[in-house]
Amino acid sequence: MYLFSNSIGSFILDENGTCVEEMLTTTTHPQANDALTNTLQRKYKNIQTLPKNKLHLALTLMRDKKYLTALRNANRALTNDALRHSVGPDNLMTQTVSAIEEIDKVTNLLTKRLREWYGLTLPELGELVTDHAHLATLIAQHSRNELQTLKKIDQTIGSPFIETDLTPIRELATQINSLYTLRQEYENYLKTIMKTHCPNMLELAGATIGAKLLVMAKGLKNLALLPSSTIQLLGAEKALFRHIATGARSPKYGIIINHPYVQNSLKQNKGKAARLLADKLSLCARLDYFKGEFKAPSYKKELDEKSEKEKTQKLSHE
Amino acid sequence: MYLFSNSIGSFILDENGTCVEEMLTTTTHPQANDALTNTLQRKYKNIQTLPKNKLHLALTLMRDKKYLTALRNANRALTNDALRHSVGPDNLMTQTVSAIEEIDKVTNLLTKRLREWYGLTLPELGELVTDHAHLATLIAQHSRNELQTLKKIDQTIGSPFIETDLTPIRELATQINSLYTLRQEYENYLKTIMKTHCPNMLELAGATIGAKLLVMAKGLKNLALLPSSTIQLLGAEKALFRHIATGARSPKYGIIINHPYVQNSLKQNKGKAARLLADKLSLCARLDYFKGEFKAPSYKKELDEKSEKEKTQKLSHE
Repeated sequence: MYLFSNSIGSFILDENGTCVEEMLTTTTHPQANDALTNTLQRKYKNIQTLPKNKLHLALTLMRDKKYLTALRNANRALTNDALRHSVGPDNLMTQTVSAIEEIDKVTNLLTKRLREWYGLTLPELGELVTDHAHLATLIAQHSRNELQTLKKIDQTIGSPFIETDLTPIRELATQINSLYTLRQEYENYLKTIMKTHCPNMLELAGATIGAKLLVMAKGLKNLALLPSSTIQLLGAEKALFRHIATGARSPKYGIIINHPYVQNSLKQNKGKAARLLADKLSLCARLDYFKGEFKAPSYKKELDEKSEKEKTQKLSHE
Repeated sequence: MYLFSNSIGSFILDENGTCVEEMLTTTTHPQANDALTNTLQRKYKNIQTLPKNKLHLALTLMRDKKYLTALRNANRALTNDALRHSVGPDNLMTQTVSAIEEIDKVTNLLTKRLREWYGLTLPELGELVTDHAHLATLIAQHSRNELQTLKKIDQTIGSPFIETDLTPIRELATQINSLYTLRQEYENYLKTIMKTHCPNMLELAGATIGAKLLVMAKGLKNLALLPSSTIQLLGAEKALFRHIATGARSPKYGIIINHPYVQNSLKQNKGKAARLLADKLSLCARLDYFKGEFKAPSYKKELDEKSEKEKTQKLSHE
């Protein structure tokens, strides 16, 4: 006699595959089934679990209509449950990072329109204010006259618009403004997720670069498993494949080029800086994935000291 | 002796180009200068205006420092003035139509993100609601539970999000909603401009198609001067040039394909319908540009009768 368990219950089968006793489960909770198995094991002392070479007996049994529908439903419920729990912080971060990138595209497009449209009435303002967000705020919050006074535009070559023609432009500016606010909120949300999910990455890489690395690696687990040389080149795939295909120069850094530590390095040291930073980022990802200590501040200090030393050496050479 | 006038005043010159009398203007208003000219003409009876072959005398005179700066300033003021008044309803319509097109792009991009993001927690909703604007409104205004009840989604394979993870999604939906509202406001604004600027075009073509035709023709004046066969093909430039270059079939219609009159025609009659509609649109553009009567309703009736007749013929043939 054999013991066989699956998602709908536990069964005792004889040598011919006939069911001697069955205990059906009522929930999809895996532990409920364990309890049934235990009960049966206590009842049938020393019972053997169905070996692999006899699995066909169980399959034949399960073809019975009595079990088939229940089995299908139970398995579907288990799949749904797995799906439901497969969504984690990685997914939320991916959505947020993508949303931020899209908002950047959108605000750029709409601000270009704003510049052109408002340029019909006060072209001087667009030339004086090059920052997109600032321009949108000014137009949304001030009247045309106020802006002329504020920016000391005595004479304008723009056309004197009537109020009904200014309103649609101002509404566009307001819309752009609230898109910038949303972007800021998403940045904060990203930081909140990272603070619990990957505090070391957040500390060393910052929210923007850290989140992008996680998204490019498709999750914290994958990032933790990547060699640091790959982390160094994440985001430089195009240049890397060009290097492999045509033998062009290999890239020295991916998106970590935007990190202040690499940014502030001397041009000839940037490659080395990127490598050192990627080393530490790789350690951070592993610490975060395996729920290790919060070591990022000491790594940061290490990097800072190295770059300090480099600068002194540079000076003494001169 | 000759009389010479320009933007800074009127002058009496002798045969050698020496200034005998000058009257300088104080404003850039062209009529002020006319008055000065009249005064001098009354004083010097039968005086001749400086003929073209003696214009060099005036040029030499104007090189005098006394006049040069004033002349430059006056001309710049005139140019600015011309620029200021060059902005008309055509420009406002162009900006509005472009803004609407850009808002369409933007809402599409952001709604795709919204679908994917909300799909992590309630994927069934996105499948049930295919309309972008409707989906955004639902997510912005209802909680996840309300939506499940509303759309009868008993079981979901989505992940049960906590409130802090739902907020950013709901904010995105709100943002998309207000972009849709802005689009509606721009449509209304467009109608307001067209009602005074080109009522016939508005009546026959509608705000969207009418405004697009005007933008593609670069203004009402140009549209009024175009032959109706060109109006018929506005927006089909790519197909037209392909026809010219490669001898492919010539296009039968441009953006007027979207007009209900062409849309509702039988497939084999669409080309003819587009031609008839373009004829009438061309008349409308001319009426509007030369401030003629409001004849669009009668054109509309004519077209409606023709399409009615066509349908009856079609039926009698069957």
